[in-house]
This record gives sequence, C-alpha cells and structure tokens, in this order.
Amino acid sequence: MPQDDLLDAIRAIAGDGGVIAGAELAKRPGDWLGFSSCMAAAIVRPRSTDELSRIMRLCHARRQPVIAAGGLSGLVHGTDAAGHELQISFERMRAVEAVDPVGRTMTVEAGVPLQAAQDAALEHDLIYAVDLGARGSATIGGTVSTNAGGNQVVRYGMTRENVLGLEVVLADGTVLSSMNHLLKNNAAYDLKQMFIGSEGTLGLVTRAVLRLHPRPLTIATALLAVDDFDGITGLLSLCSGRLGAMLTSFEVMWQSHYRAIAIDSGRHQPPLPAGHAYYVIVEASGMDPGRDEAFFTALMEETLAGGLAADAVIAASGAQRGAIWGIREDIPGIMAAMMPCAVFDVSLPVTAMPDYVAGLTASVDAEWTGQGKLMVFGHLGDGNLHISVAPRPWSEEARHRAEELVYRPLEAIGGSISAEHGIGLEKRAWLSSSRTPEEIATMRLLKAALDPLNLLNPGKVLIPEDSSA
Amino acid sequence: MPQDDLLDAIRAIAGDGGVIAGAELAKRPGDWLGFSSCMAAAIVRPRSTDELSRIMRLCHARRQPVIAAGGLSGLVHGTDAAGHELQISFERMRAVEAVDPVGRTMTVEAGVPLQAAQDAALEHDLIYAVDLGARGSATIGGTVSTNAGGNQVVRYGMTRENVLGLEVVLADGTVLSSMNHLLKNNAAYDLKQMFIGSEGTLGLVTRAVLRLHPRPLTIATALLAVDDFDGITGLLSLCSGRLGAMLTSFEVMWQSHYRAIAIDSGRHQPPLPAGHAYYVIVEASGMDPGRDEAFFTALMEETLAGGLAADAVIAASGAQRGAIWGIREDIPGIMAAMMPCAVFDVSLPVTAMPDYVAGLTASVDAEWTGQGKLMVFGHLGDGNLHISVAPRPWSEEARHRAEELVYRPLEAIGGSISAEHGIGLEKRAWLSSSRTPEEIATMRLLKAALDPLNLLNPGKVLIPEDSSA
Repeated sequence: MPQDDLLDAIRAIAGDGGVIAGAELAKRPGDWLGFSSCMAAAIVRPRSTDELSRIMRLCHARRQPVIAAGGLSGLVHGTDAAGHELQISFERMRAVEAVDPVGRTMTVEAGVPLQAAQDAALEHDLIYAVDLGARGSATIGGTVSTNAGGNQVVRYGMTRENVLGLEVVLADGTVLSSMNHLLKNNAAYDLKQMFIGSEGTLGLVTRAVLRLHPRPLTIATALLAVDDFDGITGLLSLCSGRLGAMLTSFEVMWQSHYRAIAIDSGRHQPPLPAGHAYYVIVEASGMDPGRDEAFFTALMEETLAGGLAADAVIAASGAQRGAIWGIREDIPGIMAAMMPCAVFDVSLPVTAMPDYVAGLTASVDAEWTGQGKLMVFGHLGDGNLHISVAPRPWSEEARHRAEELVYRPLEAIGGSISAEHGIGLEKRAWLSSSRTPEEIATMRLLKAALDPLNLLNPGKVLIPEDSSA
Repeated sequence: MPQDDLLDAIRAIAGDGGVIAGAELAKRPGDWLGFSSCMAAAIVRPRSTDELSRIMRLCHARRQPVIAAGGLSGLVHGTDAAGHELQISFERMRAVEAVDPVGRTMTVEAGVPLQAAQDAALEHDLIYAVDLGARGSATIGGTVSTNAGGNQVVRYGMTRENVLGLEVVLADGTVLSSMNHLLKNNAAYDLKQMFIGSEGTLGLVTRAVLRLHPRPLTIATALLAVDDFDGITGLLSLCSGRLGAMLTSFEVMWQSHYRAIAIDSGRHQPPLPAGHAYYVIVEASGMDPGRDEAFFTALMEETLAGGLAADAVIAASGAQRGAIWGIREDIPGIMAAMMPCAVFDVSLPVTAMPDYVAGLTASVDAEWTGQGKLMVFGHLGDGNLHISVAPRPWSEEARHRAEELVYRPLEAIGGSISAEHGIGLEKRAWLSSSRTPEEIATMRLLKAALDPLNLLNPGKVLIPEDSSA
C-alpha cells in the first residue's frame, strides 16, 4: 500500500479531487462493464501534464508503481491493478485543445473519449478515422497506448497511422513532448512510436496530435450473404481492386455469429435470412455524390450476377446502415449467447482462414463433445478475426485449453495472438507463440531502459523475469 | 584501421568477394554522384543475414565500427565513413524473395533497389507506393533506414506506413527477425518502428516485408499555374476535398524553380509559360476508367473558372506526364543552376509557408546583396519544402549562414529541419532546433541501450556526448 503521506502529497498537487480512495474508490469499476471493482490502492486524477509530472516524480522517488487507465474498455486485463498500485485516471484531462482545419490536425488531452474527438472533427467537416464499438468509453490515451484498430483500418490504418504527435510523462516524471503537427518529420528518431501500442508500460500518454481526414461526402453500406470462402476472397479482391481507397470496411460474420445475433437473439430485424455460410459488410465512402451510389450498387449487383454473393441488401438510409452495423457490434448480444467464454483477437493471412476456422471448429467440437460454442467474426479486410470460444462446462482449465486450440495452430501459419487488443495480462504467457526470443529480449531491453524501476503498468505485456507469475 | 586479420576473418565468412579493399576500394564512390570517394577502411559485402550476423559478432568483439550503405543517394552525409570504419554494403543481397498477391506483401533483401521492388510489384498488378527521384539507386534498406518519403506521401504515407515486417542485425550480431506479414499485429512492442528512420544507428536492416497496394487503373496529371498563395491553399483544399484518397501528389514549384529548370535550362519543353508565381503538379489515381478522366478534367476546369489557377495543362499521354515530372525531378538541372549550394528539406504548416518563403527570400537577398540564389519546390500536400540556397561567393561560412537563415525561423512556427532527408552528419548540430532536450536525451538512451559500444554509424544523427565534433 502506498503510504498515506504520498496520497497527501498528491492531493497537495492535484487538489482534493485529485485522489479517490476509501469508500468512493469501492464504487469505482475495474472494467467498463462493471464486472469487477477497481482494485488499485487509489485513483489519482491529475488535471494537467504538469501535475502528472510532479506526481510521477513523487512516485519515482518512492518506487510507487502506477497504471494508466482510460475508458477501461480493453479486453486483455491491460489495466488491472493490484492493491499496492495507483491507477492514474485521465478523466480530468478531457480538453479538445485545438482543431486546425487547414493542417487537418486535432490536439487533445489523453482523457478525451474517442467519440468526443470524432464529434469535434465533424464540426469542421473532417473525420478522426479511428473507430470502434467502444467509441463512447475508450479514450484517446487508451487507444494510443493500445494502438487501437477497429472498423476502418483497411482504409485509414491503425491508431499509429493517425497520431502525428504525442506528449508522454516518463517513469521519473520527465515530460517528453513530441507534439509534432507535421505530416513529415524525419528529424531523428520518431520517439512517439515507442509509446504507441506499448500499453502504458513505457510512458504515460498525456496529450496527442491526431491526424484528421476529409469527411467523405457519401457512405454506402451493403450486407452480403456468401456461401463459400472462395466467394469471400473473390469479393475482397473485387471490392478492393474496384473501390481502391473508397473501401473503408470489409467485415465478415461466420454463420454461427449471424444466426445467434441477427436471428436467435430476438434483438434485431435480420436484413438477410439465415442459412448462408458467411455474411459480409462492405462499406465504401467517397467524394462524388453524383456517382458513388450508382457505382457501388452496380458493383454489388455484379457480385450477385457473378455468383460471388448469394444474396445482398444495400442500406437505403442511415437507419438501415445502423441496423447492419448493429448486428456486427452487438456485444451484449454476443455475451448473452456465449458467456462465460474466452474472447480472442487473432490475425492471420486471409488465405489461411478457412482451414484455420474449420480446424478450430473441429477441435472445439472434439474437446467439448459438441457442447462447446464457437463464434467467429472479424475485420477480414485486415486479416483480423475475433473469436469467442465457450467451453461447456466452463472452467479456468477449459479457458486455457481454448487458448491452446486457438493459438497453437497460428504458429505454423505466421499468425498473431493479438491483432488489435494487445497483450495485457491475459496473453503474456502466449507472447512467445507470436514473437521470437530475440524480440522479447529486445522488448525487455527497452522496458529496462525507459522504466528501470518497473513502475509503469508492471507485469503487463512481458512476464517479469524474476517471477513465474 | 581494422586489423588485417579482421578482414581475413570476414573473407572466411563472406568469400573473397566479401571484402573490397585497396585499389578496388579507391574506385568506389562515396556518394551516388561520384563527387567523393569511399573513405571507409574497406567495404564488406555479406551475401546473407547469417553472414552479416557472424561478421557483426566479429566486429562487436573487436569494437569495430560499421556503416550500413544503400544506394548512397542520401543528401545529409548519413553514410559518410571515416578511415577506421567499415562500410557494410548490401549489393550482394538483392533478392526479391516473394510476392504474395493475395496478402499484398513483398519480401525483399535490403539491397534491392527501390525501382526493382516497384517493378516486381507491377508484375502482379500491384504497386509499392514509396516513390522518389532516386528510385534507380536508392535501396529498400536505405529507404527503410531513412523513412523515405517522396512523391506519393499524401496518399500512401512515408516508408514507415509501407513496411509490415523487418529483419535487423543488431550491434552484437543478434538477428532480430520481425518479418511480420500481417496488416495488424499488436502482439507487444512494434520493434521495427525503432529501426525505421534511425539511419542505421540502432541496427542494420537486412530484409523487409513491404505492403503493396492495388495498381490504380487510371492516372491523371495536371500542371497548373497559380498567381498567389491563397490560390495554392484553395487548390489543395479543393483537390483533397474533392478527390479524397484519389489525390496522390500535390507538388509545388516556386517561380524561380520553374523558370530556371523549365525555361532557362534549355533542357525541357515548357508546358506553361513563365511569369506565374507558382506551378503546381496535381496527380490523381483511381479505379474507374469510365469516369476518372472526365471527373479530373472537370475539376481542373473548375479551378480555372473559379480563378484558383491562372493556367493549366492536363497530360494527354504518358510522355506528357513524364515531361511534367521531368521538370520537377531534374536534379542535374537544379545542380547546374545552383551549384555550389546548400540543400534543405524542411516541413512546416502550409499556412505558414508564404511568410516563411517571403522572409527567406528577403534575408537571402540582404545577406548576399542580391547575388545569392534561392530555389524552392516541394511536396506541398505534405507540408514539405525542398530549398536550395546558393550564397555568392560560396564558402563554408556562407553555408552555415544559409543554415541559420533557413532553420531559425522554423523554430517559432513549429517546423522541422528535416521532413524526409534525415539528419546524418549534416544536420545534427541543428537537431535541438526541432527537438527538445528531453527528446534528445531519450534518443541517447535508446542508442545506448541498443548499441552500447557505439559501433553502428557512430556520430550520425546525434552529436557524440564526449566530443565537440
């Protein structure tokens, strides 16, 4: 436990609201769904980079470990706290500081929710193109620290490609300001890259300069039913070849997902009947209202005429578009259908997917003699599958077995155990399945160089060398 | 000087052709134009990553510094060698190992010239989108190590955005293989980012997995004459808003550049008359042959009708397109007009450009009482200007004065002393003008962690702490 005088010293910096402890702390959740309670010794809430810098100087002097937390919507226990750790919250650092409509940049504090950043961009007819289901909860700091992906990666890239500048507080309180606003800056090492996707283990993200893009003038969305995987690859090839950079999303739901969510859940009006092997969301955005809709419709008709798709529906309104995405993003529906379950986020070459999923289906069936459930959907245009495995009966041992079934086959096909969710606590034991010993040794070298006292999110991503935990 | 027995040991690994020394070495250039001779003690030419790894183990044991060299087309003395250093050449590692047309990746050795990689992609109807004037000389290893930019950054990003995986030999000979082929991989730290753009000071790039894009089916190119800078920003805004991701290049030549190259050099057929303040190359690529040309032509006509452009010509053939780009990329023409001169590569907000260039014009005129010459062109869509300053009379002192005139005003407007060329030896004394003391300290920390003996391209990028050199 941190000593009381440390919390007093932090209050002296950040005000009475700067520390949440005791009864108030007990009401705070440990995750966005409220499944768990915050287990940190206290929540520390700086109002500025300077306050956080001073707080970290105190923590550094006392060897006090800290964990940066955003919207708590991560899925790999990346912000879990132990009782002796402090959670650093950015909920009092939520300013959208500036939007530059000519340079197309936005300067924000780390605590700004993703959706608030998106909305602020829209006011200037621009978009912040990182988008994901948790947009209302996830913060810019969290999405930067986890290099969040989402629904438009095929067009706009991951968070890494959408961050121009970054301000970070290092473990010793040093403020590392790389608030670059320029699209091109090769003035020596691009330090911000180290902090993007390192899950708060190398530095605490306090502010960011985000890259904005022109707001598309048209959006077209279709849901297609496809009966075999050759149809999927053919469709992806046709859409990306024909739409080029207009293709913003290419999402696939396996039959089990579509049936459970769109039909069986009773939560949706199914736009297409069940019974097909795959359901694909194709979304395109463009700049030519006079032409884009007809072009997209003709392309979708071509997929039907050519036999790539067995059925298709094009959203005729924003409401219909929302209904299609609502099936894809219905996390409560998935949870109702699958919980308790283990959730995975793997990437692999698209061409390897049908055999991989078929093998996994067979091994889940064999392992739990037909009682286990498997649900697969994903950002197929990015080679990214989200997989839920629900062993029955559920146990922690069964979860571990599910991990083996999902991860082991990836090694031979060059897949990754994490496409976008990160490693956190949950996947660190499997890291060597996706990364070489030399890579992991180099990661340890980096961590030791930047955080030699191991104060920043200790134990996340890399298993501590002095422990078997 | 390295001891002879080291070179013998290297020959034992890499064969007789593995070391170039003595008379043969004297014939080797120090830069791509042959202005200088190779000053290294010897050139070492491994045939494989494994050979380089074994060579680096030898060098590490003997504290032998090395400098990785690609096509020698860098512009900041980033590969200059001193007499006691070995140059590592990748000219025997030029294999295009694989192209995956479905996953759209290419696996290459570091010595593959950029143009050879581009050509290999085209064979599969794909493109490797990094493109720059030195494409015939520059190598993949060099473009990765310098995070090369070029002509299509506005659409496809810098080299960093086009590299999925990397293999690097570290200072102690360790092979760090991160040959990721996946678009998304958040399995812990993205180590390759450290080596991209660090100019060979942290590791030696041996192989890379490149991201490929669909080959556009249409390319449209126009040269426009614009009479004031508001026209430039209006044109950029119109083109990027209307063309979206179809906009692949937005290049601007200031009048002095166009006049000197297109008219006065006698090397070109000027597509437009001289006398306008700016000349803009707009290039768009698309996927719809039935529509793109008419759309682009209508947009260009709109810029004339709306008064943004004073004159315009659209390339009607590949030859005309080549003629327009030939003016922009005529480095020999620039050299003939300007040499001796100092060459700069800065980035700054587009809105700050007119005042910046006007101020620079005035200060060059004042400094050399009307005898100094100034030429400005650049990737304006990326905020990147290439500036040549030719003081008269020329001297090293005058070069330093030119640096002051170019770099000092950038500090107040948040510009960068290097948009894409890097730092090398040439700009390291100015690094603090673009980066904070905390950033530079963190760079030193990284360098010390990854190359504690300072064997990799020593003295480049960062001024050695134990020297005033």
